[in-house]
Amino acid sequence: MTTDELTAFAHGVFDAQPFSGFLGAELTGVGPGTAEIRVRNRPELRQQHGFLHGGVVSYLADNALTFAGGLALGGDALTAEYKINYAKPAVGDVIVARAEAVVTTRRQAICRCTITVHRDGAADGDAEGRVVAVAQGTIVTAGPAPAAADAG
Amino acid sequence: MTTDELTAFAHGVFDAQPFSGFLGAELTGVGPGTAEIRVRNRPELRQQHGFLHGGVVSYLADNALTFAGGLALGGDALTAEYKINYAKPAVGDVIVARAEAVVTTRRQAICRCTITVHRDGAADGDAEGRVVAVAQGTIVTAGPAPAAADAG
Amino acid sequence: MTTDELTAFAHGVFDAQPFSGFLGAELTGVGPGTAEIRVRNRPELRQQHGFLHGGVVSYLADNALTFAGGLALGGDALTAEYKINYAKPAVGDVIVARAEAVVTTRRQAICRCTITVHRDGAADGDAEGRVVAVAQGTIVTAGPAPAAADAG
Amino acid sequence: MTTDELTAFAHGVFDAQPFSGFLGAELTGVGPGTAEIRVRNRPELRQQHGFLHGGVVSYLADNALTFAGGLALGGDALTAEYKINYAKPAVGDVIVARAEAVVTTRRQAICRCTITVHRDGAADGDAEGRVVAVAQGTIVTAGPAPAAADAG
Repeated sequence: MTTDELTAFAHGVFDAQPFSGFLGAELTGVGPGTAEIRVRNRPELRQQHGFLHGGVVSYLADNALTFAGGLALGGDALTAEYKINYAKPAVGDVIVARAEAVVTTRRQAICRCTITVHRDGAADGDAEGRVVAVAQGTIVTAGPAPAAADAG
Repeated sequence: MTTDELTAFAHGVFDAQPFSGFLGAELTGVGPGTAEIRVRNRPELRQQHGFLHGGVVSYLADNALTFAGGLALGGDALTAEYKINYAKPAVGDVIVARAEAVVTTRRQAICRCTITVHRDGAADGDAEGRVVAVAQGTIVTAGPAPAAADAG
Repeated sequence: MTTDELTAFAHGVFDAQPFSGFLGAELTGVGPGTAEIRVRNRPELRQQHGFLHGGVVSYLADNALTFAGGLALGGDALTAEYKINYAKPAVGDVIVARAEAVVTTRRQAICRCTITVHRDGAADGDAEGRVVAVAQGTIVTAGPAPAAADAG
Repeated sequence: MTTDELTAFAHGVFDAQPFSGFLGAELTGVGPGTAEIRVRNRPELRQQHGFLHGGVVSYLADNALTFAGGLALGGDALTAEYKINYAKPAVGDVIVARAEAVVTTRRQAICRCTITVHRDGAADGDAEGRVVAVAQGTIVTAGPAPAAADAG
């Protein structure tokens, strides 16, 4: 696939994920082996202390890792596993997950992801943001018989 | 806290999580160092292939780990980090995460979680279910100044 | 392979690992999807505080996971990834890693491992020991073209 | 501590690790929140296929993560947990682990590590090398009573 085809493919997959729409997430960046997904903070995404729930942070990490890996591998892909470290409470107006493939072989891409929070309007200008979590995982190609694994 | 107090405390924390309510999750079991959380499968929780999204599976793992750890530690707790392996596509009527503390020290509990899927009515009788994911993570006490970490 | 053949195969692989011999490790148990590896504590395996070095604990976890997964998968296998939580300082006369496959599919086994320490003579009688670390990882079949991954 | 004091402290800790000496490892770089450890490939560090054993790769990751985190935290530190993905077989003359702290708070540093292999003489000039593994973990301060965790 060309870069344009991969971009279109990625957006097609993302738009076909009901859960991403349910959370209000957006696929805001794709490249060769990279992906960025954002979600706006809103009350129903929070936990008992008013921070964004770890499940939302995990969703972002999982999905950004999958898309970065799929873009590196050149097609449909599945997250086989990942780990996430929460560094700081996730507060702010927008939460952004940026992932990249670090090593890609024929059937898998090992990817890393950094999750940051930003005030409104600052997610673009303030590229660094405040790091609230980092993740690392394995993305595998979704073969004709995806016997195992998640398609998160 | 007594077991009854811990149970009440856990339910109080869970009910105060807007995100858990948004997903329709329920805290269906608590014990000394154990927790069980369930969610019913419904279309908005799925990904592009119709399976439950990895983000939902991750939410369940994260939250069940936190509650198991908090119950082992005896109070409010935070997930510092965890890893999850997706084993099989998550399909079925009900998805259940069961977590337990494996080693508890003064400030942390290392917990494991198994996530299973079940057909309607089988989550109780069919205690084993079909394992779709397994997770392991660190839960830390939420001190007076929770400077870092998630409260998922 | 029959159970006897798998057992012989596992011991053959283990005995062919120079690093396992260098550390003085022994493969002390194999079963269908389970493995146990031990090493005696001695000064050169320690870190600056006199505890067994994390690298030794990691070796045990990595290798026990690989053998448990290989035995579940029925042949040569590689550790694709794992995570380990250190729970307590590793002191004692013997350190034991016991691993088991939790979910096995065609090409991978997701395995868990518990690492315990024991006083001399107690590793058999005191089956539980003192848990010093727990691990979880992915073991994959070593196909004809093992393009990626470790054979730890 | 000043940078010079931290550097001296790190080398003092490393030199006090019998296991690092046993493997022939060297602490070849330290900075504020970064560390580099190397080991020369030799037969006794290998597994059954002639690659460096995963336990050696894990030792390097674990120890480089600990030193990077300790340097970020400004003192004695312990690896609480980490995960490692093996990407490719570890062959070559020298294997190098480079770690850095990504997020540091009062009591912990979340660190990442990249492990590369190099031909003789190329570890300096060929700074990128061939990535054989990547890791991520949590390093915690070693308080006056290090009740839990590894000091790998």
